[in-house]
Amino acid sequence: MNLLVVGSIALDTIETPFASVSETPGGSALYISISASYFTDSIGLVGIVGDDFPKDVIDELKQRNVNLSGLKIVPGERTFRWAGKYHYDMNTRETIYTQLNVFSDFDPIIPDHFKSSKYICLGNIDPVLQMKVLNQVRSPKLVIADTMNFWIERKFDELLETLKHVNVLIVNDAEARQIAREPNLIKAGRKILKLGPDVVIIKKGEHGAVLMIDNAIFSAPAYPIEAIQDPTGAGDTFAGGFAGWLARTDDVSEKNLRRAVIYGSAIASFCVEDFGINRIRKLSWEDIQKRFRAFKEMTSFEVD
Amino acid sequence: MNLLVVGSIALDTIETPFASVSETPGGSALYISISASYFTDSIGLVGIVGDDFPKDVIDELKQRNVNLSGLKIVPGERTFRWAGKYHYDMNTRETIYTQLNVFSDFDPIIPDHFKSSKYICLGNIDPVLQMKVLNQVRSPKLVIADTMNFWIERKFDELLETLKHVNVLIVNDAEARQIAREPNLIKAGRKILKLGPDVVIIKKGEHGAVLMIDNAIFSAPAYPIEAIQDPTGAGDTFAGGFAGWLARTDDVSEKNLRRAVIYGSAIASFCVEDFGINRIRKLSWEDIQKRFRAFKEMTSFEVD
Repeated sequence: MNLLVVGSIALDTIETPFASVSETPGGSALYISISASYFTDSIGLVGIVGDDFPKDVIDELKQRNVNLSGLKIVPGERTFRWAGKYHYDMNTRETIYTQLNVFSDFDPIIPDHFKSSKYICLGNIDPVLQMKVLNQVRSPKLVIADTMNFWIERKFDELLETLKHVNVLIVNDAEARQIAREPNLIKAGRKILKLGPDVVIIKKGEHGAVLMIDNAIFSAPAYPIEAIQDPTGAGDTFAGGFAGWLARTDDVSEKNLRRAVIYGSAIASFCVEDFGINRIRKLSWEDIQKRFRAFKEMTSFEVD
Repeated sequence: MNLLVVGSIALDTIETPFASVSETPGGSALYISISASYFTDSIGLVGIVGDDFPKDVIDELKQRNVNLSGLKIVPGERTFRWAGKYHYDMNTRETIYTQLNVFSDFDPIIPDHFKSSKYICLGNIDPVLQMKVLNQVRSPKLVIADTMNFWIERKFDELLETLKHVNVLIVNDAEARQIAREPNLIKAGRKILKLGPDVVIIKKGEHGAVLMIDNAIFSAPAYPIEAIQDPTGAGDTFAGGFAGWLARTDDVSEKNLRRAVIYGSAIASFCVEDFGINRIRKLSWEDIQKRFRAFKEMTSFEVD
């Protein structure tokens, strides 16, 4: 496989000030896989669902050439469920409930033909499981990982151990501050770079994303969306676009990492236009290219 | 005059979590003038101070070729004073006190030789006074104005009237939302464009600035400062750099407006490195150019 994706697969119940949906397919591995599938047709997914998970979504993943030999479907069991509610500004949300179900026993077993994947994208799961994945793969070219406050608070030492084996950490601003215990975002990023990752990407929602490598900083805006329907999965969609572009081009130069950030931002900007995976299921390559060019237009200025 | 600057001149008492200063020279007109003086030597300032305002700052303005024939120094009276305290994250502040003193009688009389100024930069003052300035000048090429929550709340109708005569409105994100009564920043910007201004610039502090013209959006990041000493005046310094660059080049094309936003952002990024005007007093043209190029480096990516 070119790109190995490991993470959660869920049924999400989402409430925003404007609308709500019940048990829509979600989870980090789903968003990452769909997003990355626009860039590469060599994706292996490792995850777990119950037999209540919609067949049409599984079929769609297959159509997108996502190899599902690492997807465990547990008969008679229920898929992981999450419910959240967004506040008026769409920037903050609260978790209404979390039902781990099959996910409580998730033990990522990497199929043999996935073990030599060049690119690894670890969705937001227990850092112990992330490490377990990394212990099974053979010298990947690039390991990309996400995490969240839950793990930073409960498994900080384990996260620090995992970070030593991660090349690119993708976190949001609050998570970066929390990991580094530093309120200034740039200082926080630099501290994280000392913990293992060669690259840190800090997602700032409507304010875009910042890529930090050594002394270089690349700042990407968010695409201006006038009617955000649902921010769920935007971060994972970003990670999928980022990882997908790198896997497609097999180039991890700073120059190409910058482009990958823009591809991630471009595809994530579609994600928020509808609930769940609704919008990112329906994209064309030209849609993504057009939005990529819109980022260029939006950030260009001449020096002389 | 090439650039007419009208606004407050103050003695600011500033407390941050790390340090504090007492009665340091400030005010929108002072920040704008110093900032713009790096770009053009044809600036006319209209403002008011008491005779307690430091002579060395007045002398410095003269050395910077800022024409002070519109500066009223009221004998035996005290300069406008403001005191504010920043919270831990440096993004929010509270006003401790405001002593208007001479500023309560500020009646901007534009000297005859300022009346044909091509560029007008109206600092954050009562919109009635801003309008009074505009009623005295002769067909300027570009009117740039700032405002704040105080006027939006207390003189909204007067502000709407002034906006009809403003070409470029520079506000922060909260002010944009408040004027437009719209939480989405992009929608808010578009609403403001219908109120009169041809261009709106929304400053987002550590998240940079957005320029909106018709259907075009230009997004500029903030320069990453690891140790922000004092955010006071950064917005005015931005406006001064923006206005100064336009006055210098006498080009209000979109292409040049984008550059002006970067010059504004570049010089504002110096402002926060020290208290009050301390840092922006000491810049060289090369300092500004170097930071301008850093913005280019920070935002560049290749399409192919």
